[in-house]
Amino acid sequence: MLSFSSDYTEGAHEKILQRFVETNLEQLPGYGSDHYCDEAKEKIKKAVEMPDADVWFLTGGTQTNEIIVDTMLAKYEGAISAVTGHISAHEAGAVEFNGHEVLTVPGYDGKLKASDVRNYCETFYGDENHEHMVFPGMVYISYPTEYGTLYSKKELEEIYAVCKEFKMTLFVDGARLGYGLMSTGCDLTLPELARLCDVFYIGGTKVGALCGEAVVFTQGNTPKHFLTSIKQHGALLAKGRLLGIQFDALFTDDLYFEISKNAIERADELRQILKDKGYKFAIENPTNQIFVVIENEKLKKLQNQVTVGFWEKYDDTHTVVRFATSWATTKEQIQEVEKLL
Amino acid sequence: MLSFSSDYTEGAHEKILQRFVETNLEQLPGYGSDHYCDEAKEKIKKAVEMPDADVWFLTGGTQTNEIIVDTMLAKYEGAISAVTGHISAHEAGAVEFNGHEVLTVPGYDGKLKASDVRNYCETFYGDENHEHMVFPGMVYISYPTEYGTLYSKKELEEIYAVCKEFKMTLFVDGARLGYGLMSTGCDLTLPELARLCDVFYIGGTKVGALCGEAVVFTQGNTPKHFLTSIKQHGALLAKGRLLGIQFDALFTDDLYFEISKNAIERADELRQILKDKGYKFAIENPTNQIFVVIENEKLKKLQNQVTVGFWEKYDDTHTVVRFATSWATTKEQIQEVEKLL
Amino acid sequence: MLSFSSDYTEGAHEKILQRFVETNLEQLPGYGSDHYCDEAKEKIKKAVEMPDADVWFLTGGTQTNEIIVDTMLAKYEGAISAVTGHISAHEAGAVEFNGHEVLTVPGYDGKLKASDVRNYCETFYGDENHEHMVFPGMVYISYPTEYGTLYSKKELEEIYAVCKEFKMTLFVDGARLGYGLMSTGCDLTLPELARLCDVFYIGGTKVGALCGEAVVFTQGNTPKHFLTSIKQHGALLAKGRLLGIQFDALFTDDLYFEISKNAIERADELRQILKDKGYKFAIENPTNQIFVVIENEKLKKLQNQVTVGFWEKYDDTHTVVRFATSWATTKEQIQEVEKLL
Amino acid sequence: MLSFSSDYTEGAHEKILQRFVETNLEQLPGYGSDHYCDEAKEKIKKAVEMPDADVWFLTGGTQTNEIIVDTMLAKYEGAISAVTGHISAHEAGAVEFNGHEVLTVPGYDGKLKASDVRNYCETFYGDENHEHMVFPGMVYISYPTEYGTLYSKKELEEIYAVCKEFKMTLFVDGARLGYGLMSTGCDLTLPELARLCDVFYIGGTKVGALCGEAVVFTQGNTPKHFLTSIKQHGALLAKGRLLGIQFDALFTDDLYFEISKNAIERADELRQILKDKGYKFAIENPTNQIFVVIENEKLKKLQNQVTVGFWEKYDDTHTVVRFATSWATTKEQIQEVEKLL
Repeated sequence: MLSFSSDYTEGAHEKILQRFVETNLEQLPGYGSDHYCDEAKEKIKKAVEMPDADVWFLTGGTQTNEIIVDTMLAKYEGAISAVTGHISAHEAGAVEFNGHEVLTVPGYDGKLKASDVRNYCETFYGDENHEHMVFPGMVYISYPTEYGTLYSKKELEEIYAVCKEFKMTLFVDGARLGYGLMSTGCDLTLPELARLCDVFYIGGTKVGALCGEAVVFTQGNTPKHFLTSIKQHGALLAKGRLLGIQFDALFTDDLYFEISKNAIERADELRQILKDKGYKFAIENPTNQIFVVIENEKLKKLQNQVTVGFWEKYDDTHTVVRFATSWATTKEQIQEVEKLL
Repeated sequence: MLSFSSDYTEGAHEKILQRFVETNLEQLPGYGSDHYCDEAKEKIKKAVEMPDADVWFLTGGTQTNEIIVDTMLAKYEGAISAVTGHISAHEAGAVEFNGHEVLTVPGYDGKLKASDVRNYCETFYGDENHEHMVFPGMVYISYPTEYGTLYSKKELEEIYAVCKEFKMTLFVDGARLGYGLMSTGCDLTLPELARLCDVFYIGGTKVGALCGEAVVFTQGNTPKHFLTSIKQHGALLAKGRLLGIQFDALFTDDLYFEISKNAIERADELRQILKDKGYKFAIENPTNQIFVVIENEKLKKLQNQVTVGFWEKYDDTHTVVRFATSWATTKEQIQEVEKLL
Repeated sequence: MLSFSSDYTEGAHEKILQRFVETNLEQLPGYGSDHYCDEAKEKIKKAVEMPDADVWFLTGGTQTNEIIVDTMLAKYEGAISAVTGHISAHEAGAVEFNGHEVLTVPGYDGKLKASDVRNYCETFYGDENHEHMVFPGMVYISYPTEYGTLYSKKELEEIYAVCKEFKMTLFVDGARLGYGLMSTGCDLTLPELARLCDVFYIGGTKVGALCGEAVVFTQGNTPKHFLTSIKQHGALLAKGRLLGIQFDALFTDDLYFEISKNAIERADELRQILKDKGYKFAIENPTNQIFVVIENEKLKKLQNQVTVGFWEKYDDTHTVVRFATSWATTKEQIQEVEKLL
Repeated sequence: MLSFSSDYTEGAHEKILQRFVETNLEQLPGYGSDHYCDEAKEKIKKAVEMPDADVWFLTGGTQTNEIIVDTMLAKYEGAISAVTGHISAHEAGAVEFNGHEVLTVPGYDGKLKASDVRNYCETFYGDENHEHMVFPGMVYISYPTEYGTLYSKKELEEIYAVCKEFKMTLFVDGARLGYGLMSTGCDLTLPELARLCDVFYIGGTKVGALCGEAVVFTQGNTPKHFLTSIKQHGALLAKGRLLGIQFDALFTDDLYFEISKNAIERADELRQILKDKGYKFAIENPTNQIFVVIENEKLKKLQNQVTVGFWEKYDDTHTVVRFATSWATTKEQIQEVEKLL
């Protein structure tokens, strides 16, 4: 059955598998100290245009989020996030498990506003009892957001300015980074993004890898003994090559950007099809996730042949569903779903 | 350069890579709910001869250890381990990071003794102030141990009896399980081992997989909402297929056992070579890790052509090094190192 | 200077100090095992009309909240609270520090609604991805609330019914319990309250003691090895007598209720005075905290002679302030402030 | 019945109770911001001869230990302690609950050796895999130790030198500090002690107070936002006066030292009596805890009239018991126990 339920339904890009096969019997040192990791890091630093950036590889999104939040915050600090942010809503309390509160501000189709963050901080520091409260030490945003929306360059600049004013770290969750950067709705480049935050990651799991996220510290701000912290969080792979080889492949010949572009082109095609057929969009966004309102009856039929993601009830007779395209989505699959809609 | 430095220097067994390639574009649901995970679990349950066992896949050893310890202990409980146990010495305090103390007993070439555990518990419960102390809630052992040694069936029975007497969970870290089970020094079968503990895992990372450990709960004792706990610990992979496909391959046609046997046969060959050449063994064991005493001068020369693991200083002119064979070690490599020794 | 800034500005009721003096040189065993603790517990069980209740003494409110939440929740569970609840807003993230998320629902003058809690749970369990989220395991309410309001018996019954339906613990923070129970706005008795929750505490710090909260487990549901957990949280006093003697005094001859009544009578007098003088109340409530709107100019003058609590800015020329009466407030102090208003 | 079971069997020194009574109705601000706290801090800084020291009040020993360890260590660091140290053995895993491992070195009658600490650190940093292990970030010692022994000035200097060399904090647990300083076996002054560590505390609970420990940061090294951390650990008292008034009284007219001296004089008398009667001492020490070997038969009889602390079994017919004197022990009590022995 055809699936548009998420962007992690297939394995890995074939070039990654090919590299696994080619390098398989090469004997390599462990824990990320192999030369594939080194090469991947160099390629990422080049793509980011930051020779002094520090790059690390972790396995998945929640893991990366909790490690970044935990190692970059003091124990008495929490992370500000839109209430819809992944760390707030869908990580089983991983951030709290590590001892930190997620401090929520409103989400506007997944995005938070610099003005709300400023307001939060001003209220906090204006409260004479704020020492009895959790200090805001970080702002967490996702790019694209969980709703597929993108911050404009101007919005990011405003958010980053507030972070600097209140001495907070700006952390960009880029689990779907490629799908943001290659969107026609994106008005910034990867190097520009890197300069508008303190730490971000380049998502692999949802963009062509079997697993893996590449964390980039942009300000010489890598937490001290970060390897030990990774180990302590249970996240250090003995065979670091698993991540190094994948990111080396993804950042060779712009593969990461090319396959991200594929997802966007397929999404735009599907978006047009849905529009033409008169579907209403629950959220307007320019990336690989499409949220449409669909009649329950129709959905029921559709689900016999296509898997889509349930998002939320719209009203008694309609549902919001998510169609996600990915690096692996083909033109044929789009044509197929077009027939079924 | 030839490496005997560890059992995780190569990638994965070729059959695993082949299965990655074959299944790559199949669209699968996430988080371990795909049919490859299901099939792998069934095959493991069959190998363990426990239709009611509950099998879960995690990514690495430290991660598995900390999740098992954390989810199976009450907050006021700690885990008894040999002082040389991996959770005690080499996991960057991951167990403590999760809030639990590792309660140490002496290690005898890596093994703990049932009598020491009993003594620990008797002393604990005999102390009128024991409510001011950490309750022993689990016994952690590794099979094989960090020193390559094996518990006999009788020793395991004794340890398990003490665990039952003092209502403690017995947890067997099987990061190198295959290398234990296929050793000529092993006097029990996988099903027997499974019946002599409450939870154990079948190590993949060191035995043919790129990553992955298969946890087996043997007593209907899976922690409640274990998936949520895995997520909370940052250990839930979106592409669960990464683990499912690997363990499916490893438990098809006894691959796991066959490749484990290879490591043992190569180790036994190397052990004989070392013996014949008059090397002294720092620890006697029957598995894939060989600890020998080597003259510093000789070691220096050797290291130009072979990588081995530094273990510890022996005396001013000698060093203990570790030679590790693995599923990937070839007869040719053994012959090559023979020449160099 | 006269202070109405809080209900913890004085020391302890004189009968408590007297008992300290009388018992001072009696040699007693430590850690709460002395006979004063025993007697206090018996008196509390009698007041609660629950011979099988289990009573424990802790030192302060935040400490009690975090220990109750932490020991009564599974690690994957969080506590539902009004967004204005003390554990949500004013405990420096103590609950998160212990690993649990505070799951917020709206607050209506400090109170949460059973219907919102039900809605939260239904949405949670209705979400097919709820295993990726924090399970609601407890409902936390305060009686009186942080805004001085009280739940009616009917409201409590409704909340408790939702808790039972979704297998959640109902925890009542009674830091100011006496001031709730003795209010004319209260429609339930202490024994009734005890039957409408799973655990609650009788606040001492704000009601006549130097420190201390008496936790009552009402359902045979004391967490296993609770003493050890208290110790682990750093909350076990060597001289348990400090708490035992205070609660023994407070629950002798209904002292706790009498002194609570004093606070309420003084508050009602002050409330009438403020009403008569035309002050606007920011929140209507029947307990010992009075929230009034006051002109900034007037406030400035007033603060030369009376300390009140800043609550929040009302508008550009007005402020909301809190007048708190307590067990120690005298008729003379009320008359004095009347003159100044 | 007469009790020598511990040094916390009585309430508080009468001057403390008197001050409670005298100051009781004074209205004071909360959370340690009252003038009694301020005055007590000034008096302590004067006693320590460190005008720039930073003094904080906490409630009990375990609480103080866990907060100091947790706030002064990075998350990847642990605290080195003698295996018999209080944080290692008798705090229900409070340090681990806060996420840190206690790294043990041998105890010699309760004391650790600078050479063992140095050896630990050299081995740690010499291990090429030390990034997979817990970093030693602090040395914890108690003065006097749990066995009543004292470090000499020279020993402290050696330990502190090792701490400086390996960039570790030296933390001195002074739960019984007065009994150390006033011992004839003590060769340093309070100001000297303060200069030989980074942080220490002056125990009140066991030395004349109902509760309370005064933490002294000696190097401008108070953890940032320490008040918030105290709150987060559930240790911030609303009525900070409870601690301020006690320490103000204890540090007025050298009361703390005088009453500590009483305990030592009584202990020395009792020690002489035991010696004269031929008792064997299990541990030789010059402070207020006396460990003697006693025949089980004799002990049984004695326990009808005196409570002593069980320490450990000596052999089949003998037991080691602890006699503890305190600030409250009288000459009459010594004479009484003399008759019974």
